[in-house]
Amino acid sequence: MVKALLFDVQGTATDFHATICDAAQRISAGRHPGADWPDVVRRWRAAYFTALKSAQNRNTGWVSVHSVYRDALDRVLDESGLKFSEAERDELTLAWRRLKPWPDVVAGLTRLKAAYTLATLSNADVAAVIDISKRAQLPWDAVFAAEMAGVFKPDPVIYRMAATYLGLEPDEIMMVASHKYDIRAAGSLGFRTAFVARPLEFGVDGEVDVAYSNEFDINASDFIDLAEQLGC
Amino acid sequence: MVKALLFDVQGTATDFHATICDAAQRISAGRHPGADWPDVVRRWRAAYFTALKSAQNRNTGWVSVHSVYRDALDRVLDESGLKFSEAERDELTLAWRRLKPWPDVVAGLTRLKAAYTLATLSNADVAAVIDISKRAQLPWDAVFAAEMAGVFKPDPVIYRMAATYLGLEPDEIMMVASHKYDIRAAGSLGFRTAFVARPLEFGVDGEVDVAYSNEFDINASDFIDLAEQLGC
Repeated sequence: MVKALLFDVQGTATDFHATICDAAQRISAGRHPGADWPDVVRRWRAAYFTALKSAQNRNTGWVSVHSVYRDALDRVLDESGLKFSEAERDELTLAWRRLKPWPDVVAGLTRLKAAYTLATLSNADVAAVIDISKRAQLPWDAVFAAEMAGVFKPDPVIYRMAATYLGLEPDEIMMVASHKYDIRAAGSLGFRTAFVARPLEFGVDGEVDVAYSNEFDINASDFIDLAEQLGC
Repeated sequence: MVKALLFDVQGTATDFHATICDAAQRISAGRHPGADWPDVVRRWRAAYFTALKSAQNRNTGWVSVHSVYRDALDRVLDESGLKFSEAERDELTLAWRRLKPWPDVVAGLTRLKAAYTLATLSNADVAAVIDISKRAQLPWDAVFAAEMAGVFKPDPVIYRMAATYLGLEPDEIMMVASHKYDIRAAGSLGFRTAFVARPLEFGVDGEVDVAYSNEFDINASDFIDLAEQLGC
């Protein structure tokens, strides 16, 4: 009997690729005519994942995800030969705190909220999750993030933290994500799992694993489909 | 320039005295004709404060507030000679997870939410704050609680935790409470402070300090008055 749903935010609930491409184009203001923004954003996100892993391994205390994105941006822009001032780089990095939700998200969460406790379980900074959610009016009952656990997903500690805070057993909680590594990590700890396909996560030319699999309790095309399958 | 408001929950946002008195009367079902429920609840709350302090001093890892209330209830009922079964004691303790908001709270928070980030900063368990907020539809942007800091208010660690999670400086955050020890602790760390008078916090015969004081940035009669004074 599932009582609470935990949601990944960057990619699952929000369309970071479109949001960040839009911000880059706006800040670029036509000064970089040959730039392939969809590719730049894909490389930025990949550099973030690499930096996150390296930060975990170095074990040097907490690193804000904002600073991880900011540092990764320097590398990606320098490799691409794209000129942005420091202030423009700061502004572009702030776009990760303003991610727009996929079009089904508010409607799906609103239906789910009547029957379940809804919380985030995000690797983004708490302040970023709050900003994103407030702008997009995402109706969470609680915001949980890696910063509260001191480790990033898929470390088991963060899933267990969420279960403790919710006062629930793992099998009373469903982890919802478009990233299989995330729900697999939760599933291995006894959580229920819902895979949500986000074929446009990396833009129209991005490569995304959207294959449904019976290893998950639910496979859904979006949050409205998820709500329907959960009887909401 | 205040950007976020932190709210105490038990007493400031919710009327625990009326909620718990109602629950006690319902569970008692007329079996304790001489019982003075308002006094029992006052003594229960006082025993909770004593136990919280003692738990902090013993420094023996985290104690759930639910278990603190449950243990304190045994002492209060036994002292009063009131007979309740174990199941009834468990049920009565759960009423602390179902506290009803004061009548101004939802309207006040809804007005404040348009201009500020709103979060709880409660000594209650995270799960209790979520339950209370979901039932009462309290529109928080985030739930912060002592359980996340590993210490109870007024320990400085919990206020600093909230500032870190919000990504704000103390003077950009206002602590809102009906308990002066709470806002004084926040104020001494550089937070802005709002005192909200709750004359009925301990029932009609309860003793409450509701005196306004210019040591606080705001003194308000309820959350609607607070919203008005903050220009919402």
